[in-house]
Amino acid sequence: MQTVFHLTTDNHDEQRTTLTIAENLTKDDSVEMDDVAVVAQSHGIEPLTADGEGNETVESMLESGISFKACANTLELKELTEEDLLEGVETVPSGGGELTRLQHEGYAYIRP
Amino acid sequence: MQTVFHLTTDNHDEQRTTLTIAENLTKDDSVEMDDVAVVAQSHGIEPLTADGEGNETVESMLESGISFKACANTLELKELTEEDLLEGVETVPSGGGELTRLQHEGYAYIRP
Amino acid sequence: MQTVFHLTTDNHDEQRTTLTIAENLTKDDSVEMDDVAVVAQSHGIEPLTADGEGNETVESMLESGISFKACANTLELKELTEEDLLEGVETVPSGGGELTRLQHEGYAYIRP
Repeated sequence: MQTVFHLTTDNHDEQRTTLTIAENLTKDDSVEMDDVAVVAQSHGIEPLTADGEGNETVESMLESGISFKACANTLELKELTEEDLLEGVETVPSGGGELTRLQHEGYAYIRP
Repeated sequence: MQTVFHLTTDNHDEQRTTLTIAENLTKDDSVEMDDVAVVAQSHGIEPLTADGEGNETVESMLESGISFKACANTLELKELTEEDLLEGVETVPSGGGELTRLQHEGYAYIRP
Repeated sequence: MQTVFHLTTDNHDEQRTTLTIAENLTKDDSVEMDDVAVVAQSHGIEPLTADGEGNETVESMLESGISFKACANTLELKELTEEDLLEGVETVPSGGGELTRLQHEGYAYIRP
């Protein structure tokens, strides 16, 4: 099974909750996961950036195989470039487009 | 592909974010969209009303072909009628029912 | 049709909104529902507990046939046991796992 998490909030506690739920999913032996992805946009992009609060959690999740996708519209709006993102974070044309594409492919959607 | 956005928050910044993500989806050339809809209920109904903050964005999105659906239960609770809504906004028996129906038909769901 | 609601917020007003939308879905004659479930985790677990605010609504919804599932990771984190939950609430290994499984089975997902 495949699941995409949606990260948009600027609330650090809610950001941590989203990342924890995604991490716990990969540790749940009752479901066989083929892919766990996180699409971040708007304020939710902060933990994916090189100097963003909470980015050490994202780094360890990237290492464990969870993929992170940053919305290019958000980067433009916040005057960020791909160099400002953690290594391994992908960029997608739009968060809404990626979430649509993944659900169309059969991913479950979770927005904590 | 088809996507439905869910608008329930009373936070004007979050309302704007939801509308922006929906609008950006229609401009993302990497996905071929057949329909983009917004289901609004609870406090999220405000920008769909004739005197609600943010309604000029909804008006321009309606003109560009994005559909807006207001929950009839919310209208009753807030003592609003269909006349209080922007022209072109549809009414649905319940927000939850419409979101269920659309996802059942294959729509992706996004709640920023 | 089948729908799962996701309850994570600590905001009592938002918790009430989620429960109301779930309840209204069961009363919407325009959709034929086979199952309505609520997965609660993080702060959203409060109304499912024996002394949590809003639990009288959950009790009446349980009686009407809506199922409630509490995340075991949340119970552990909050040092709660199954005895602290309302009678009839199920426990699932992880909220993310249950939401993935149900959407994979065809449930719509709603996070108000």
